[in-house]
Amino acid sequence: MTVTAPQGFEAAGVAAGLKSTGKPDVAVVVNRGPRKVGTAVFTSNRAKANPILWSQQVVADKVVEAVVLNSGGANCFTGEFGFQTSHLTAEKAAELLGVSAGDIVVCSTGLIGTGDEVFRAKVLDGVERGIAGLSAEGGPSAAEAIMTTDTVSKTAVVGGDGWTIGGMAKGAGMLAPGLATMLVVITTDADLEAHEADAALRRATGTTFDRLDSDGCMSTNDQVTLLANGASGVKPDLDAFDEALADLCAQLAKKLQQDAEGASHDITIEVRGAASVADAVEVGRSVARNNLFKAAIFGNDPNWGRVLAAIGTTNAEFDPYDTDVFMNGVRVCTAGGPDRPREEVDLTPRATDLIIDLKVGDETATILTNDLTHDYVHENSAYSS
Amino acid sequence: MTVTAPQGFEAAGVAAGLKSTGKPDVAVVVNRGPRKVGTAVFTSNRAKANPILWSQQVVADKVVEAVVLNSGGANCFTGEFGFQTSHLTAEKAAELLGVSAGDIVVCSTGLIGTGDEVFRAKVLDGVERGIAGLSAEGGPSAAEAIMTTDTVSKTAVVGGDGWTIGGMAKGAGMLAPGLATMLVVITTDADLEAHEADAALRRATGTTFDRLDSDGCMSTNDQVTLLANGASGVKPDLDAFDEALADLCAQLAKKLQQDAEGASHDITIEVRGAASVADAVEVGRSVARNNLFKAAIFGNDPNWGRVLAAIGTTNAEFDPYDTDVFMNGVRVCTAGGPDRPREEVDLTPRATDLIIDLKVGDETATILTNDLTHDYVHENSAYSS
Repeated sequence: MTVTAPQGFEAAGVAAGLKSTGKPDVAVVVNRGPRKVGTAVFTSNRAKANPILWSQQVVADKVVEAVVLNSGGANCFTGEFGFQTSHLTAEKAAELLGVSAGDIVVCSTGLIGTGDEVFRAKVLDGVERGIAGLSAEGGPSAAEAIMTTDTVSKTAVVGGDGWTIGGMAKGAGMLAPGLATMLVVITTDADLEAHEADAALRRATGTTFDRLDSDGCMSTNDQVTLLANGASGVKPDLDAFDEALADLCAQLAKKLQQDAEGASHDITIEVRGAASVADAVEVGRSVARNNLFKAAIFGNDPNWGRVLAAIGTTNAEFDPYDTDVFMNGVRVCTAGGPDRPREEVDLTPRATDLIIDLKVGDETATILTNDLTHDYVHENSAYSS
Repeated sequence: MTVTAPQGFEAAGVAAGLKSTGKPDVAVVVNRGPRKVGTAVFTSNRAKANPILWSQQVVADKVVEAVVLNSGGANCFTGEFGFQTSHLTAEKAAELLGVSAGDIVVCSTGLIGTGDEVFRAKVLDGVERGIAGLSAEGGPSAAEAIMTTDTVSKTAVVGGDGWTIGGMAKGAGMLAPGLATMLVVITTDADLEAHEADAALRRATGTTFDRLDSDGCMSTNDQVTLLANGASGVKPDLDAFDEALADLCAQLAKKLQQDAEGASHDITIEVRGAASVADAVEVGRSVARNNLFKAAIFGNDPNWGRVLAAIGTTNAEFDPYDTDVFMNGVRVCTAGGPDRPREEVDLTPRATDLIIDLKVGDETATILTNDLTHDYVHENSAYSS
């Protein structure tokens, strides 16, 4: 039931003709209250799409009535006209819902540069039909309508003590911290103050979506929105809510990783023994972005030299001659030299575990990434054609 | 004639059995004087190979008698034994040349983790036979012996007013600033003081090899060495020497780019209108490292959105809504919106020109890179197998 699993939310997904396939491409998620708490985190890319520029204003007061999302066009770098399209999208939804346009979040995903008159007309039509079709069972169809190159719709539900959190995500590549080509809507019927919802969202995304780095490429359109309506009447224990929200985000992040474009391995990079969490994250990201390492994993080649070479480009505290590397449980490098023979490492499973022990401290961090494959090159060389 | 084009240098390349193909794999370049000025720049990767750790000590006094290079094994992360191998290599060459081991630079390239007893014995044998075969015509065979996945040997010669500079380079991927998987030896018979040679080398590499970024991966073994012997008896005009050395380095860098593993496009990224050179370099490198942009170029797709998305991840001064992008002479994006239709851009030639005009200042920088191709993935997934 995804975003409609918690009480007091309605959703819909409709086909508005933005996708040439005729599949659903406009989604609407509406909060029926009683509270209208809403907050979001956005891409840290300085090249931000029009819907991001619009939505940043919307969430400033932490009040959100609804989220409108479209696939089939990013409405990014489409000029002043494109910003007006995001604005008009919010106005259309607001008019039909009887609320203020300033409380409508807008999200778009697809090709940068797409956002002309035809795009605008289709989105507005989709909003109209989406709102007409809203229902408390509409979560799955909304989750489908935000898919682009995703092969499966991505949803998750986590239950708490009298309250529920539901979420949907889209993303299949261009996944990098800050955030990814990722649109996520999370709903909860827990009774949260705006600052509580905001703090919980930032904490949860910081250790989940922000540590997913499929291909090092940061998107212009990413947004993770949390809506909280208090419909359960239950004020949650905040630690329990934090934990549940992080759990939900981790589930969705894992699904994004597992559906990354063209990937044949899901690589979990666990950095141990770091002097700080920041060091552990920097090391993990550097390895996650190293094309030579990622190509080696595609070839089932436990090339640990490329791991050390990637660590060497960071500023993290470490001694290249006292670092251990494990691949799928086998210690292939210890203290800057070869350890177990490469033949012992079986890299044929899709799930791949890389452990790096820096041996200088007690901090740890885990980064999720994928391998670099022929299919990745193929899908991304043919994207706009 | 490459490194033996200037007077007073001898070289040789021999097959010592490090390469399974039986091709030449050990090279020696000897300075016959009268002066023995030598300086080098090294990879900035903190994970440095044994020959780098050795050679950094050698060049500290700016006196170098000879350079010994091997392909077929990086001698990196091979433990204390590996460092001793570099040391023994220098001792062997010093003994045969009647000079000090502390004046012998050692360079290695190949797979990280390769450097056992067999490797050591073959290298030492190669040094012996290389020195026995030294000649003033040996430059080309030395250039051949340092090739790994290179498809052609890379050499250049630039003449000055009474003096000559010669150079050889190896590298075919893992090319990134600081430096690349690049071994370069440059010789000159110009009469230079040690500090003059050092300053000239740093200036020249800073705008050439350091701006070549094939795949964003920084090597553990890179070294560019300059030997100057004054055999011409001519003290060069320093500006003219600087210019000639930069020209030679630019020629070699271009050859490295054109031979990058699996590449089908050589992309020249010119960043104009930057507030500072540092900004221009940061923007160029960010685009050069964006896998989505690089895959698009492979697919002959002028996907300028990915260029703006890459710029947005930098700290450079720029306005995403006032930036122009040209591909092969066609302005595809202006002021944050689409300009000329994509059909006007012909990306079929191998040489690809990307111009980014940030429109905030007068500074400029050019970064050389390659596209991301099926062949790149193939070659780098099978490297150690």
